[in-house]
This record gives sequence, structure tokens and C-alpha cells, in this order.
Amino acid sequence: MAKKSPPQALDGNAVRTQRTRARILEASLKLFNERGEAHVTTGMIADELNISPGNLYYHFANKDEIVEQLFARFEERIDVSPQAALDGSGASDVIENLWFYLHLMFEAIWAYRFLYRNLDDLMDRSRHLREHFNRIAGHKLEAVEALCEGLIRARAMKATPAQVRALASNVLVVATYWLNYQALRRRPVDAETTLGAGVYQVMSLVAPFLSGPARQHLEHLMQNYTD
Amino acid sequence: MAKKSPPQALDGNAVRTQRTRARILEASLKLFNERGEAHVTTGMIADELNISPGNLYYHFANKDEIVEQLFARFEERIDVSPQAALDGSGASDVIENLWFYLHLMFEAIWAYRFLYRNLDDLMDRSRHLREHFNRIAGHKLEAVEALCEGLIRARAMKATPAQVRALASNVLVVATYWLNYQALRRRPVDAETTLGAGVYQVMSLVAPFLSGPARQHLEHLMQNYTD
Repeated sequence: MAKKSPPQALDGNAVRTQRTRARILEASLKLFNERGEAHVTTGMIADELNISPGNLYYHFANKDEIVEQLFARFEERIDVSPQAALDGSGASDVIENLWFYLHLMFEAIWAYRFLYRNLDDLMDRSRHLREHFNRIAGHKLEAVEALCEGLIRARAMKATPAQVRALASNVLVVATYWLNYQALRRRPVDAETTLGAGVYQVMSLVAPFLSGPARQHLEHLMQNYTD
Repeated sequence: MAKKSPPQALDGNAVRTQRTRARILEASLKLFNERGEAHVTTGMIADELNISPGNLYYHFANKDEIVEQLFARFEERIDVSPQAALDGSGASDVIENLWFYLHLMFEAIWAYRFLYRNLDDLMDRSRHLREHFNRIAGHKLEAVEALCEGLIRARAMKATPAQVRALASNVLVVATYWLNYQALRRRPVDAETTLGAGVYQVMSLVAPFLSGPARQHLEHLMQNYTD
């Protein structure tokens, strides 16, 4: 029998390469979020890390490649169905789990907020980003509609198919553009307040269609939030 | 008694100047809407009108000045209270008048859609635009809240003050970002479909809080819209 070779260990260079790539992505995300992607150059990213521009270009051909890598990480985090979090929950659990899931989604949006601050420009520049963002939105619309249909079957929601469709679109618009609206309104942009308010606004779209204990439970949670 | 002098007539030069300014603004609005403000130069505007760049600079020092003039026209058109349109209407009239008013607002947004396509960038560049846009949003929030309070007094709506506040913010977010969302979703962007769908989405936010004949009338209008 042939001897198995031991699992290939990464050599020192490969480890260093991976670590540098990760540091470049992290520093880029920080600078993009702080200053807006349009105002950040690859030179500024290299400066931030005390590496040479040449070293940076060894890892990423240009800024667009960094943006695409960051977008891929964002997509992995946001493109998660709420179904797993909600399966088998009772009427009050489902509301709390939904609230928690929405909070996770808003946290992902906040972590990659440069994408949202600059959405139209990024979409104009990259067909890849536009297609993926549109696909994420499509999945979310389907998820909201499936969720509503589940609540209707469980007699926790009353809504016609047309109402569910309109509700799903409104959920998407409010979740997608909440940060932009807060910036436009010059609201303080600390994470906790902004995200909490975003979740509250989305839940306020859903609330009028709930009935029975689910509605009471949500009204209770929303009351606590505004107190 | 002193003889009144006849009203000062504009001389030929002044008339020509005014006409050229108006033509520059009109051509700029057209190009900005078609191509995005960021992709249009003053040279392209001069070309479109078959005038020299020097002639254009005689009227406007730079592109930002053209954007500010266009914004002033937009503000005049959008910053109109719904109150005049709604005063003294009965329960069903109020819904139809509100629908019509929303259509006018969406038409104004559509006419100046370059502002919305490029909102974050324009706000970053101009404190003046940011303040005015924020002021318009403030007026609209107040108008929606006043409208809801009127409907509540007329027993055509049931909502708590917290619900009215959340509703007003959601109306603002959906109305402000509807075109961006349609572009993100790659929806066909003919004016009629996009604006009609925007009005429908905003009305669907209001509908769950209406009661009595106002609610029935709105549900009837929305039904006709989706058929």
C-alpha cells in the first residue's frame, strides 16, 4: 500500500501572503467606510499599512479588485435566509427571532456601509456588483414573501397576496436605503442608534398586518424600544 | 402730479441673455438626467446647444452653479404642502387628492432624477444642497404627520403617535429612494410605470392605518391599479 503523504503544510511565504491580503482588505474596508470609497486611493491603503504600493499591487491589481473581494465577503454575510432562524418558532418566538435576524442584517450593512453610501456609482462601474446586488435583493424579496406566507398560514398575519408583494418591496427599500436616509437627515451615525432605528422602521412596516399574540408581542417590543 | 414712466422694457440684449440662460439650464437638465451629472461636462452642454464654452461661462461660472440653479427650480416644485390640495375634502376625496398630490411629487422627482441618482455625492460636494434637501425632507415629514393627524381627527385613520412617526419616516424613505431601488432592480425605467408604482408603494404604507370609507376607497383604487 502506498504511504500517504502528510497534509501539505503552507510554507512561510504562503502564510505571509495570506496574512498581507487579509490586512489589505481590512484596512481598505476601514478607509472606505470612513472616507467613502471614491476618496480612497491604493496609495492611501498602502500608507495605512506601512507597505509599499508595489507590495499592494502584488496582491491586488487595482482598487476595483479590492472592492470586489470585499463585496464577496459582504455577500456571504448578507445573503443568508431567515428561514433557519425562524423554523419551528412559536408566534412570539418568531417575532423575536425576526427582530434578531434583522439586527444581524443591519449589522452586515453597517460593516460594509461604503457599498451603500456609494451604491449607484458602484453599480454603474461594475456589472458584476450590480448583478450580485440585484440577486441579493431578489433573494430577500422572496424571503420576506415566504415569511409572510408562513405567518399567514400560522394565523399570525392577515394580508392579501398584493399586500404581501407591496410590503416586501417596502421592506427592501427601507432596509437598503436606511443609512443613506439617516445621512441625508444628518442623524448622528453611531452604529447602535442607526441600526436599532433601522430594525424598528422595518418592523413597523410588518406590524399592521400581524394579528393575535404575534401582534401584541411585536407592539410590546416596539413600545420598549421607543421608551 | 408727476407723470408715471412706462414700465421698463427689457432691451434686446437682456432678453437674449435670459433666453440663453434658460436654454443652458434646459439642456443641462436633459444631459444630467440621461447620462448622470458626473459624466457631463460644461463642454458637452455647450456642444449640445451649439454655443461656445466662453458663451456658457458668461452665464454660469461652472457646472456647480448650473446644478444649484436646477436644484432651486426643483425645490420650488417639490416643496409644496399637500394641505391646499386636501383642505375641505371628504373621506374619499381626500384619498384621491392624496394620490394625485403624490403623483405630482413623483413627477417632480422624475423631472430632476439626476439629483436622486447621485444624491450622496451631491450632498458630499455641496453643503447648500445638503441643507436644502434636508429641509425639504423635514417639511415633508411634518406634512405627512399633519395629514395623518387630520385623518385621525376625521376618524378616517387609527394610529398612535409612535405609529404616525414611523409611518412618516417610511413614506419619506420610499419616496426618496424609489427611483434608486428601481434602477438597482433593473426595472424598466419608463416614467409612467415607475411613477405609478412609486405612488402605489407609498399608498400601501398608509393603507393599513385607514379605516371606514377612506380605507375602502383606497383599497378600491389600489385594486384598480394592480388589475
